[in-house]
Amino acid sequence: MNEQRLLPRATAKRIPQYYRQFQKLQAEGVINIMSKDLAIIMKIEPTTIRRDFSYIGELGKQRVGYDVNYVVAKLQSFLGFDEPKSVVLIGAGHLATALINYNYIKGNNILIRAAFDNSSEKVGGVIRDIPVYHMSDLARYLAENPHITVAILSAPSEVAQEITDELVSQGIRGILNFSSKRLDVPRTVTVENVDLASKLQTLVYLTDQA
Amino acid sequence: MNEQRLLPRATAKRIPQYYRQFQKLQAEGVINIMSKDLAIIMKIEPTTIRRDFSYIGELGKQRVGYDVNYVVAKLQSFLGFDEPKSVVLIGAGHLATALINYNYIKGNNILIRAAFDNSSEKVGGVIRDIPVYHMSDLARYLAENPHITVAILSAPSEVAQEITDELVSQGIRGILNFSSKRLDVPRTVTVENVDLASKLQTLVYLTDQA
Repeated sequence: MNEQRLLPRATAKRIPQYYRQFQKLQAEGVINIMSKDLAIIMKIEPTTIRRDFSYIGELGKQRVGYDVNYVVAKLQSFLGFDEPKSVVLIGAGHLATALINYNYIKGNNILIRAAFDNSSEKVGGVIRDIPVYHMSDLARYLAENPHITVAILSAPSEVAQEITDELVSQGIRGILNFSSKRLDVPRTVTVENVDLASKLQTLVYLTDQA
Repeated sequence: MNEQRLLPRATAKRIPQYYRQFQKLQAEGVINIMSKDLAIIMKIEPTTIRRDFSYIGELGKQRVGYDVNYVVAKLQSFLGFDEPKSVVLIGAGHLATALINYNYIKGNNILIRAAFDNSSEKVGGVIRDIPVYHMSDLARYLAENPHITVAILSAPSEVAQEITDELVSQGIRGILNFSSKRLDVPRTVTVENVDLASKLQTLVYLTDQA
Protein backbone atom coordinates (compact mmCIF):
# COMPACT_ATOMS: atom_id res chain seq x y z
CA MET A 1 0.00 0.00 0.00
CA ASN A 2 2.93 2.32 0.50
CA GLU A 3 4.53 1.29 -2.79
CA GLN A 4 3.07 4.28 -4.61
CA ARG A 5 2.99 7.56 -2.77
CA LEU A 6 1.81 9.65 -5.69
CA LEU A 7 -1.55 8.00 -6.29
CA PRO A 8 -3.95 10.70 -7.60
CA ARG A 9 -6.97 11.24 -5.37
CA ALA A 10 -9.39 10.41 -8.20
CA THR A 11 -7.63 7.06 -8.66
CA ALA A 12 -7.63 6.49 -4.90
CA LYS A 13 -11.40 6.95 -4.93
CA ARG A 14 -11.92 4.56 -7.84
CA ILE A 15 -9.76 1.71 -6.57
CA PRO A 16 -12.25 0.63 -3.89
CA GLN A 17 -14.92 0.70 -6.63
CA TYR A 18 -12.84 -1.66 -8.75
CA TYR A 19 -12.38 -3.85 -5.72
CA ARG A 20 -16.14 -3.95 -5.10
CA GLN A 21 -16.81 -4.69 -8.77
CA PHE A 22 -14.34 -7.56 -8.90
CA GLN A 23 -15.77 -8.92 -5.64
CA LYS A 24 -19.22 -8.90 -7.25
CA LEU A 25 -17.90 -10.63 -10.37
CA GLN A 26 -16.25 -13.23 -8.15
CA ALA A 27 -19.51 -13.76 -6.25
CA GLU A 28 -21.30 -14.21 -9.58
CA GLY A 29 -18.83 -16.89 -10.58
CA VAL A 30 -17.10 -14.89 -13.33
CA ILE A 31 -13.59 -16.26 -13.95
CA ASN A 32 -12.24 -13.76 -16.43
CA ILE A 33 -13.32 -10.37 -17.75
CA MET A 34 -12.11 -8.40 -20.74
CA SER A 35 -11.03 -4.82 -20.22
CA LYS A 36 -13.72 -3.43 -22.54
CA ASP A 37 -16.50 -5.34 -20.75
CA LEU A 38 -15.29 -4.03 -17.41
CA ALA A 39 -15.38 -0.50 -18.86
CA ILE A 40 -18.98 -0.95 -19.99
CA ILE A 41 -20.13 -2.41 -16.67
CA MET A 42 -18.45 0.29 -14.62
CA LYS A 43 -19.15 3.16 -17.01
CA ILE A 44 -15.51 4.21 -16.79
CA GLU A 45 -13.34 4.88 -19.86
CA PRO A 46 -11.00 1.95 -20.69
CA THR A 47 -8.02 4.34 -20.76
CA THR A 48 -8.88 5.52 -17.24
CA ILE A 49 -9.07 1.93 -15.99
CA ARG A 50 -5.73 1.06 -17.55
CA ARG A 51 -4.10 4.18 -16.09
CA ASP A 52 -5.57 3.47 -12.63
CA PHE A 53 -4.43 -0.14 -12.73
CA SER A 54 -0.92 0.90 -13.77
CA TYR A 55 -0.46 2.22 -10.22
CA ILE A 56 -1.12 -1.23 -8.82
CA GLY A 57 0.99 -3.37 -11.10
CA GLU A 58 0.40 -5.97 -13.79
CA LEU A 59 -3.24 -6.95 -13.34
CA GLY A 60 -4.23 -8.26 -16.75
CA LYS A 61 -2.92 -9.25 -20.15
CA GLN A 62 -3.88 -7.82 -23.51
CA ARG A 63 -6.45 -9.96 -25.35
CA VAL A 64 -6.67 -12.24 -22.30
CA GLY A 65 -8.34 -9.87 -19.86
CA TYR A 66 -8.38 -9.96 -16.09
CA ASP A 67 -8.34 -13.07 -13.93
CA VAL A 68 -11.04 -12.16 -11.41
CA ASN A 69 -9.66 -14.07 -8.41
CA TYR A 70 -6.19 -12.71 -8.99
CA VAL A 71 -7.37 -9.10 -9.26
CA VAL A 72 -9.51 -9.39 -6.11
CA ALA A 73 -6.51 -10.64 -4.13
CA LYS A 74 -4.21 -8.01 -5.60
CA LEU A 75 -6.61 -5.11 -4.95
CA GLN A 76 -7.39 -6.40 -1.47
CA SER A 77 -3.73 -6.38 -0.60
CA PHE A 78 -3.17 -2.99 -2.24
CA LEU A 79 -6.05 -1.51 -0.25
CA GLY A 80 -4.70 -2.92 2.99
CA PHE A 81 -7.85 -5.01 3.39
CA ASP A 82 -6.03 -8.29 4.09
CA GLU A 83 -6.67 -7.52 7.72
CA PRO A 84 -10.27 -6.57 8.50
CA LYS A 85 -10.77 -2.97 9.60
CA SER A 86 -12.86 -2.21 12.66
CA VAL A 87 -15.20 0.76 12.72
CA VAL A 88 -17.72 2.19 15.16
CA LEU A 89 -21.23 3.34 14.45
CA ILE A 90 -22.69 6.45 16.04
CA GLY A 91 -26.44 6.07 16.35
CA ALA A 92 -28.44 2.85 16.69
CA GLY A 93 -31.59 3.71 14.76
CA HIS A 94 -33.03 2.33 11.54
CA LEU A 95 -30.16 3.53 9.36
CA ALA A 96 -27.62 2.01 11.75
CA THR A 97 -29.54 -1.27 11.75
CA ALA A 98 -29.68 -1.25 7.96
CA LEU A 99 -25.91 -0.67 7.83
CA ILE A 100 -25.23 -3.53 10.24
CA ASN A 101 -27.46 -5.87 8.21
CA TYR A 102 -25.78 -4.68 5.03
CA ASN A 103 -22.34 -5.26 6.49
CA TYR A 104 -23.24 -8.83 7.35
CA ILE A 105 -24.75 -9.58 3.99
CA LYS A 106 -21.71 -8.26 2.15
CA GLY A 107 -19.15 -10.16 4.17
CA ASN A 108 -16.64 -7.45 3.40
CA ASN A 109 -13.52 -6.65 5.33
CA ILE A 110 -14.98 -3.83 7.32
CA LEU A 111 -16.35 -4.84 10.69
CA ILE A 112 -18.72 -2.70 12.70
CA ARG A 113 -17.59 -3.38 16.29
CA ALA A 114 -19.97 -1.32 18.38
CA ALA A 115 -22.81 1.18 18.14
CA PHE A 116 -23.36 4.18 20.42
CA ASP A 117 -26.66 5.84 21.21
CA ASN A 118 -28.33 7.91 23.92
CA SER A 119 -31.65 6.07 23.95
CA SER A 120 -32.16 4.05 27.10
CA GLU A 121 -34.27 1.61 25.07
CA LYS A 122 -31.31 0.78 22.88
CA VAL A 123 -28.33 1.02 25.22
CA GLY A 124 -27.36 -2.36 26.64
CA GLY A 125 -28.94 -4.24 23.76
CA VAL A 126 -27.50 -5.71 20.59
CA ILE A 127 -28.22 -5.32 16.89
CA ARG A 128 -27.41 -8.75 15.48
CA ASP A 129 -24.39 -9.31 17.72
CA ILE A 130 -23.16 -5.71 17.75
CA PRO A 131 -23.39 -4.20 21.25
CA VAL A 132 -25.06 -0.83 21.74
CA TYR A 133 -23.31 1.35 24.32
CA HIS A 134 -24.22 4.73 25.75
CA MET A 135 -22.67 7.76 24.09
CA SER A 136 -20.99 8.62 27.38
CA ASP A 137 -18.90 5.44 26.95
CA LEU A 138 -17.58 6.48 23.52
CA ALA A 139 -14.40 8.22 24.70
CA ARG A 140 -13.40 5.32 26.93
CA TYR A 141 -14.17 2.76 24.22
CA LEU A 142 -12.06 4.55 21.63
CA ALA A 143 -9.23 5.03 24.12
CA GLU A 144 -9.26 1.26 24.77
CA ASN A 145 -9.43 0.49 21.02
CA PRO A 146 -6.87 2.80 19.43
CA HIS A 147 -6.81 0.70 16.22
CA ILE A 148 -10.32 2.00 15.43
CA THR A 149 -9.83 5.13 13.34
CA VAL A 150 -13.07 5.21 11.31
CA ALA A 151 -16.60 6.07 12.45
CA ILE A 152 -19.96 5.99 10.70
CA LEU A 153 -22.05 8.94 11.79
CA SER A 154 -25.78 8.22 11.60
CA ALA A 155 -26.76 10.65 14.36
CA PRO A 156 -29.15 13.61 13.94
CA SER A 157 -27.72 16.70 12.22
CA GLU A 158 -28.19 18.86 15.33
CA VAL A 159 -25.59 16.89 17.27
CA ALA A 160 -23.36 15.88 14.35
CA GLN A 161 -20.68 18.54 14.88
CA GLU A 162 -20.49 18.01 18.62
CA ILE A 163 -20.07 14.25 18.16
CA THR A 164 -17.53 14.83 15.39
CA ASP A 165 -15.41 16.99 17.71
CA GLU A 166 -15.43 14.19 20.27
CA LEU A 167 -14.59 11.55 17.66
CA VAL A 168 -11.68 13.60 16.36
CA SER A 169 -10.35 14.31 19.84
CA GLN A 170 -10.39 10.54 20.47
CA GLY A 171 -8.29 9.77 17.40
CA ILE A 172 -10.90 9.08 14.71
CA ARG A 173 -9.46 10.07 11.34
CA GLY A 174 -12.22 9.02 8.93
CA ILE A 175 -15.96 9.76 9.15
CA LEU A 176 -18.76 8.52 6.91
CA ASN A 177 -21.30 11.29 7.41
CA PHE A 178 -24.99 10.54 6.83
CA SER A 179 -26.17 13.77 8.42
CA SER A 180 -26.96 16.71 6.18
CA LYS A 181 -24.61 18.83 8.33
CA ARG A 182 -21.28 19.73 6.78
CA LEU A 183 -18.66 18.84 9.35
CA ASP A 184 -15.74 21.01 10.38
CA VAL A 185 -12.71 18.77 10.86
CA PRO A 186 -8.94 19.25 10.92
CA ARG A 187 -7.13 18.67 7.61
CA THR A 188 -5.86 15.32 8.86
CA VAL A 189 -9.39 13.91 9.06
CA THR A 190 -11.21 12.55 5.99
CA VAL A 191 -14.98 12.94 5.67
CA GLU A 192 -17.12 11.16 3.07
CA ASN A 193 -20.63 12.56 2.86
CA VAL A 194 -23.68 10.51 1.93
CA ASP A 195 -26.36 13.12 1.46
CA LEU A 196 -29.38 10.99 0.61
CA ALA A 197 -31.71 13.95 0.08
CA SER A 198 -29.33 15.45 -2.50
CA LYS A 199 -29.03 12.12 -4.28
CA LEU A 200 -32.78 11.85 -4.54
CA GLN A 201 -33.17 15.42 -5.77
CA THR A 202 -30.50 14.85 -8.41
CA LEU A 203 -32.31 11.76 -9.60
CA VAL A 204 -35.70 13.49 -9.77
CA TYR A 205 -34.14 16.34 -11.71
CA LEU A 206 -32.28 14.10 -14.16
CA THR A 207 -35.42 12.00 -14.67
CA ASP A 208 -37.41 15.10 -15.53
CA GLN A 209 -34.71 16.22 -17.95
CA ALA A 210 -34.47 12.93 -19.82
CA MET B 1 -36.58 24.25 -16.52
CA ASN B 2 -36.74 23.94 -20.26
CA GLU B 3 -35.07 27.31 -20.83
CA GLN B 4 -31.65 25.71 -21.28
CA ARG B 5 -31.49 22.49 -23.22
CA LEU B 6 -27.71 22.24 -23.32
CA LEU B 7 -27.03 21.97 -19.61
CA PRO B 8 -23.90 19.78 -19.17
CA ARG B 9 -24.54 16.64 -17.16
CA ALA B 10 -21.92 17.58 -14.55
CA THR B 11 -23.74 20.89 -14.01
CA ALA B 12 -27.09 19.08 -13.88
CA LYS B 13 -25.69 16.91 -11.08
CA ARG B 14 -24.36 19.88 -9.12
CA ILE B 15 -27.47 22.05 -9.28
CA PRO B 16 -29.42 19.93 -6.75
CA GLN B 17 -26.34 20.14 -4.50
CA TYR B 18 -26.43 23.95 -4.71
CA TYR B 19 -30.11 23.83 -3.95
CA ARG B 20 -29.53 21.65 -0.86
CA GLN B 21 -26.71 23.92 0.29
CA PHE B 22 -28.78 27.08 -0.04
CA GLN B 23 -31.67 25.36 1.74
CA LYS B 24 -29.30 24.56 4.61
CA LEU B 25 -28.03 28.13 4.71
CA GLN B 26 -31.62 29.34 4.76
CA ALA B 27 -32.44 26.97 7.63
CA GLU B 28 -29.40 28.30 9.51
CA GLY B 29 -30.67 31.85 9.12
CA VAL B 30 -27.97 33.00 6.70
CA ILE B 31 -29.22 36.01 4.66
CA ASN B 32 -26.36 36.49 2.24
CA ILE B 33 -23.27 34.53 1.22
CA MET B 34 -20.23 35.60 -0.76
CA SER B 35 -19.20 33.52 -3.75
CA LYS B 36 -15.81 32.65 -2.26
CA ASP B 37 -17.36 31.46 1.02
CA LEU B 38 -19.81 29.28 -0.89
CA ALA B 39 -16.86 27.80 -2.80
CA ILE B 40 -15.07 26.93 0.45
CA ILE B 41 -18.13 25.39 2.07
CA MET B 42 -18.98 23.30 -0.98
CA LYS B 43 -15.40 22.49 -1.96
CA ILE B 44 -16.18 23.50 -5.54
CA GLU B 45 -14.01 25.93 -7.54
CA PRO B 46 -15.49 29.48 -7.68
CA THR B 47 -15.16 29.47 -11.49
CA THR B 48 -17.17 26.23 -11.66
CA ILE B 49 -19.92 27.72 -9.47
CA ARG B 50 -20.09 30.87 -11.60
CA ARG B 51 -20.23 28.83 -14.80
CA ASP B 52 -22.94 26.52 -13.40
CA PHE B 53 -24.99 29.49 -12.19
CA SER B 54 -24.68 31.16 -15.60
CA TYR B 55 -27.05 28.49 -16.93
CA ILE B 56 -29.71 29.55 -14.47
CA GLY B 57 -29.54 33.33 -14.81
CA GLU B 58 -28.46 36.27 -12.68
CA LEU B 59 -28.22 34.81 -9.17
CA GLY B 60 -25.77 37.14 -7.45
CA LYS B 61 -23.88 40.39 -7.79
CA GLN B 62 -20.16 40.94 -7.66
CA ARG B 63 -18.97 42.12 -4.23
CA VAL B 64 -22.51 41.69 -2.87
CA GLY B 65 -22.82 37.91 -2.99
CA TYR B 66 -25.93 35.77 -3.12
CA ASP B 67 -29.24 36.55 -1.46
CA VAL B 68 -30.01 33.15 0.07
CA ASN B 69 -33.82 33.33 -0.09
CA TYR B 70 -33.72 34.53 -3.67
CA VAL B 71 -31.35 31.77 -4.80
CA VAL B 72 -33.41 29.06 -3.05
CA ALA B 73 -36.55 30.23 -4.87
CA LYS B 74 -34.74 30.53 -8.19
CA LEU B 75 -33.11 27.08 -7.96
CA GLN B 76 -36.34 25.51 -6.76
CA SER B 77 -38.15 26.83 -9.80
CA PHE B 78 -35.29 25.88 -12.14
CA LEU B 79 -35.30 22.33 -10.75
CA GLY B 80 -39.05 22.04 -11.21
CA PHE B 81 -39.47 21.56 -7.45
CA ASP B 82 -42.20 24.18 -7.05
CA GLU B 83 -44.59 21.26 -7.21
CA PRO B 84 -43.70 18.38 -4.89
CA LYS B 85 -42.65 15.16 -6.64
CA SER B 86 -44.13 11.87 -5.57
CA VAL B 87 -41.98 8.76 -5.40
CA VAL B 88 -42.50 5.16 -4.32
CA LEU B 89 -40.28 3.07 -2.10
CA ILE B 90 -39.58 -0.59 -2.82
CA GLY B 91 -38.89 -2.41 0.43
CA ALA B 92 -40.15 -1.54 3.91
CA GLY B 93 -37.21 -2.56 6.07
CA HIS B 94 -34.84 -0.51 8.23
CA LEU B 95 -33.35 1.41 5.32
CA ALA B 96 -36.81 2.29 4.01
CA THR B 97 -37.88 3.42 7.48
CA ALA B 98 -34.75 5.55 7.81
CA LEU B 99 -35.49 7.14 4.42
CA ILE B 100 -39.07 7.91 5.40
CA ASN B 101 -37.92 9.46 8.70
CA TYR B 102 -35.25 11.38 6.83
CA ASN B 103 -37.76 12.61 4.30
CA TYR B 104 -39.95 14.01 7.06
CA ILE B 105 -37.11 15.66 8.91
CA LYS B 106 -35.86 17.36 5.77
CA GLY B 107 -39.20 18.73 4.70
CA ASN B 108 -38.02 18.67 1.12
CA ASN B 109 -40.15 18.66 -1.99
CA ILE B 110 -39.94 14.96 -2.60
CA LEU B 111 -42.78 12.94 -1.09
CA ILE B 112 -42.62 9.22 -0.54
CA ARG B 113 -46.21 8.14 -1.24
CA ALA B 114 -46.18 4.40 -0.62
CA ALA B 115 -43.86 1.52 0.23
CA PHE B 116 -44.08 -2.00 -1.19
CA ASP B 117 -42.88 -5.18 0.47
CA ASN B 118 -43.54 -8.93 0.47
CA SER B 119 -43.46 -9.41 4.23
CA SER B 120 -46.88 -10.22 5.66
CA GLU B 121 -45.80 -8.54 8.91
CA LYS B 122 -45.34 -5.24 7.12
CA VAL B 123 -48.02 -5.27 4.42
CA GLY B 124 -51.17 -3.44 5.53
CA GLY B 125 -49.26 -1.34 8.05
CA VAL B 126 -47.87 2.17 7.91
CA ILE B 127 -44.43 3.70 8.48
CA ARG B 128 -45.23 7.12 9.91
CA ASP B 129 -48.25 7.69 7.67
CA ILE B 130 -46.86 5.99 4.57
CA PRO B 131 -48.89 2.88 3.68
CA VAL B 132 -47.10 -0.40 3.03
CA TYR B 133 -48.65 -2.42 0.20
CA HIS B 134 -47.85 -5.88 -1.11
CA MET B 135 -45.45 -6.09 -4.04
CA SER B 136 -48.21 -7.69 -6.09
CA ASP B 137 -50.08 -4.35 -5.91
CA LEU B 138 -47.18 -2.38 -7.39
CA ALA B 139 -48.24 -2.59 -11.04
CA ARG B 140 -51.78 -1.52 -10.28
CA TYR B 141 -50.64 1.32 -8.02
CA LEU B 142 -48.28 2.73 -10.64
CA ALA B 143 -50.92 2.39 -13.36
CA GLU B 144 -53.30 4.41 -11.16
CA ASN B 145 -50.60 7.00 -10.35
CA PRO B 146 -48.94 7.72 -13.70
CA HIS B 147 -47.40 10.97 -12.34
CA ILE B 148 -45.05 8.83 -10.22
CA THR B 149 -41.94 8.28 -12.32
CA VAL B 150 -39.27 7.79 -9.65
CA ALA B 151 -38.71 4.80 -7.33
CA ILE B 152 -36.30 4.19 -4.47
CA LEU B 153 -35.08 0.61 -4.55
CA SER B 154 -34.15 -0.69 -1.09
CA ALA B 155 -34.88 -4.34 -1.87
CA PRO B 156 -32.34 -7.19 -1.63
CA SER B 157 -29.83 -7.45 -4.50
CA GLU B 158 -31.14 -10.88 -5.55
CA VAL B 159 -34.49 -9.44 -6.63
CA ALA B 160 -33.29 -5.97 -7.67
CA GLN B 161 -33.22 -6.65 -11.43
CA GLU B 162 -36.57 -8.39 -11.49
CA ILE B 163 -38.20 -5.50 -9.62
CA THR B 164 -36.42 -3.00 -11.86
CA ASP B 165 -37.88 -4.66 -14.95
CA GLU B 166 -41.34 -4.37 -13.46
CA LEU B 167 -40.80 -0.73 -12.46
CA VAL B 168 -39.60 0.16 -15.94
CA SER B 169 -42.48 -1.65 -17.62
CA GLN B 170 -44.86 0.39 -15.42
CA GLY B 171 -43.40 3.72 -16.52
CA ILE B 172 -40.76 4.40 -13.84
CA ARG B 173 -37.95 6.45 -15.41
CA GLY B 174 -35.70 7.15 -12.42
CA ILE B 175 -34.38 4.67 -9.82
CA LEU B 176 -32.34 5.38 -6.69
CA ASN B 177 -30.60 2.04 -6.27
CA PHE B 178 -29.37 1.00 -2.82
CA SER B 179 -28.69 -2.58 -3.83
CA SER B 180 -25.16 -3.57 -4.78
CA LYS B 181 -26.55 -4.98 -8.03
CA ARG B 182 -25.85 -3.02 -11.17
CA LEU B 183 -29.18 -2.61 -12.93
CA ASP B 184 -29.82 -3.14 -16.62
CA VAL B 185 -32.23 -0.47 -17.81
CA PRO B 186 -33.19 1.08 -21.14
CA ARG B 187 -31.36 4.27 -22.10
CA THR B 188 -34.41 6.35 -21.23
CA VAL B 189 -34.20 5.35 -17.57
CA THR B 190 -31.86 7.10 -15.13
CA VAL B 191 -30.26 5.14 -12.28
CA GLU B 192 -28.41 6.72 -9.35
CA ASN B 193 -26.47 4.19 -7.29
CA VAL B 194 -25.81 4.52 -3.57
CA ASP B 195 -23.31 1.76 -2.89
CA LEU B 196 -22.77 2.13 0.85
CA ALA B 197 -20.15 -0.62 1.06
CA SER B 198 -18.03 1.10 -1.61
CA LYS B 199 -18.33 4.43 0.17
CA LEU B 200 -17.13 2.89 3.40
CA GLN B 201 -14.22 1.11 1.72
CA THR B 202 -13.17 4.34 0.01
CA LEU B 203 -13.21 6.11 3.36
CA VAL B 204 -11.19 3.42 5.11
CA TYR B 205 -8.66 3.48 2.31
CA LEU B 206 -8.34 7.29 2.24
CA THR B 207 -8.04 7.35 6.02
CA ASP B 208 -5.18 4.87 5.91
CA GLN B 209 -3.46 6.92 3.19
CA ALA B 210 -3.69 10.24 5.02
